[in-house]
Amino acid sequence: MSQLYLDDLSVGDTFESSEYEMTEDRITAFARDYDPQVFHTDPEAAQETFFGGLAASGWHTAAVTMRLMVESVPFANGTIGAGGDLRWPEPTRPGDRLRLLTWIEEIIPNRSKPGRARIVVQCRTLNQHDALKQEFRPNLMAWKRGVDPQA
Amino acid sequence: MSQLYLDDLSVGDTFESSEYEMTEDRITAFARDYDPQVFHTDPEAAQETFFGGLAASGWHTAAVTMRLMVESVPFANGTIGAGGDLRWPEPTRPGDRLRLLTWIEEIIPNRSKPGRARIVVQCRTLNQHDALKQEFRPNLMAWKRGVDPQA
Repeated sequence: MSQLYLDDLSVGDTFESSEYEMTEDRITAFARDYDPQVFHTDPEAAQETFFGGLAASGWHTAAVTMRLMVESVPFANGTIGAGGDLRWPEPTRPGDRLRLLTWIEEIIPNRSKPGRARIVVQCRTLNQHDALKQEFRPNLMAWKRGVDPQA
Repeated sequence: MSQLYLDDLSVGDTFESSEYEMTEDRITAFARDYDPQVFHTDPEAAQETFFGGLAASGWHTAAVTMRLMVESVPFANGTIGAGGDLRWPEPTRPGDRLRLLTWIEEIIPNRSKPGRARIVVQCRTLNQHDALKQEFRPNLMAWKRGVDPQA
């Protein structure tokens, strides 16, 4: 896919990713490493918890969202953010096929460094039934063609 | 470690985790799965990028923070949040030993469901030199002893 420079971006541009399936094996493997709580690691024991069954760690949904973003929002010099407001309206479940919709809300030029801007994007992670599993609103960095990102 | 119920929590309570070392191998393995960009996967190629060297994916820092939280903030019925404001002031680098400081900022009782509350916590992820690598401010769920989390 082509690399997108600041020159190529406009408010309202949208990006859609392919799908990534959240299998039980993927959910429990991620959780064993990073969020070892029974509702994320043990389908049986999860029945008796708040979630009433196995649920993916929110951080797994977030990590998969980043994977889908790298694939679908190919900014030149990298898809780079410094955080944002993150929300999980409902848990991701085994069998959910996640995909990412991203659109550009705002482009904020850097006043002191010409040729750079912050790109405010809205990222919605949906499953195959369009149920909203994550919302994230980061500022990404963008550079015009020919501008050195290390300068 | 003991399980903490709403009865046990007070504004100002603090929690400190052990350390987790972010090695080059861990950084590149996480990134290959979830954030495959050269500044997270290839120490050599990373030199020429915005980061000027290998940096961990912010989502790796976030996932490790969750791991440290499960260990150090043992809420009864699970350490469960629905998102929050997430910020990475500077990238995590190979050799950083991350630890988590968490404190309770606010306790907001649920008006319609007695015995439950939202616990507003501030989570700061620091390295061994106390450099701030991540700030996260989630609302966690807490229940009084004897309250059914599925009710």
